[in-house]
Amino acid sequence: MQATDCDRTDEHWMRLALDEARKAAARGEVPIGAVVVRNGEVVGAGHNLRETWRDPTAHAELIALQAASRRLGAWRLTDCDIYVTLEPCPMCSGAIMLSRVRRLIFGATDVKGGAVISKIPLLEPGRWNHTPEIHAGVLTDECAYLLKDFFQNMRKQPKR
Amino acid sequence: MQATDCDRTDEHWMRLALDEARKAAARGEVPIGAVVVRNGEVVGAGHNLRETWRDPTAHAELIALQAASRRLGAWRLTDCDIYVTLEPCPMCSGAIMLSRVRRLIFGATDVKGGAVISKIPLLEPGRWNHTPEIHAGVLTDECAYLLKDFFQNMRKQPKR
Repeated sequence: MQATDCDRTDEHWMRLALDEARKAAARGEVPIGAVVVRNGEVVGAGHNLRETWRDPTAHAELIALQAASRRLGAWRLTDCDIYVTLEPCPMCSGAIMLSRVRRLIFGATDVKGGAVISKIPLLEPGRWNHTPEIHAGVLTDECAYLLKDFFQNMRKQPKR
Repeated sequence: MQATDCDRTDEHWMRLALDEARKAAARGEVPIGAVVVRNGEVVGAGHNLRETWRDPTAHAELIALQAASRRLGAWRLTDCDIYVTLEPCPMCSGAIMLSRVRRLIFGATDVKGGAVISKIPLLEPGRWNHTPEIHAGVLTDECAYLLKDFFQNMRKQPKR
């Protein structure tokens, strides 16, 4: 199947989310990254910083949404799309819904913690006031590989 | 039915969450408040600041959990209980789960947006790695009245 222009654009932004995920890995954090895009421009970016910040809410998506809100001076991110390397957890799915983001695009699925298609369909249309359009499976292999590689390296390290 | 010591203690902390909710109302924010308690001490408090901060994630619970993590220097809040005046939304329920809080105690239920007992049982035991013990209905009337009063006053104001 030939990739459409839309697919190619989605892949472009997902590559930037992957760059964010690599920043997390470089700090020893589980490599998950996110970017918020509006009119062809990144308006917010974030990567997982839970251990660094010692903050249970420091997930890539939350940090990216907060950055986008600061940048745009608004809590409603209605013209924005969010690209995430991993299927969002309940907290981040909830935040995406609250921010009125137009589209959610994610790479790998999260069988244990995903709240979009894996564990529960939290963003199912009709359940809440607003739910975003959902696109799964953009650069899935790259996104999943980054996580797999991170955990494999972690297991190789001597136990402290 | 006579109130037990536990009920009375829960009411004490809920009154502090109500104080937080009143701070939100004083700023023209929907009055929702939360406190995180550990060993008989408040280690984090927060009230809804969505409009003030122009941040979709600035809910009382998230702010209180982030404050508790800063105070304790840890993302795991395992010995902590969180008191919230309103049933948490999906984002906040997710954050409560991620922070490993021991007990979630809330006042009023949220028929339209509650993710604990009203719209979905997001924190149902067994679904995720960790879920807190849940106590609903502490000072429900006071918590609900604050919200009702706020929205009634808002409707009385001339439209801009």
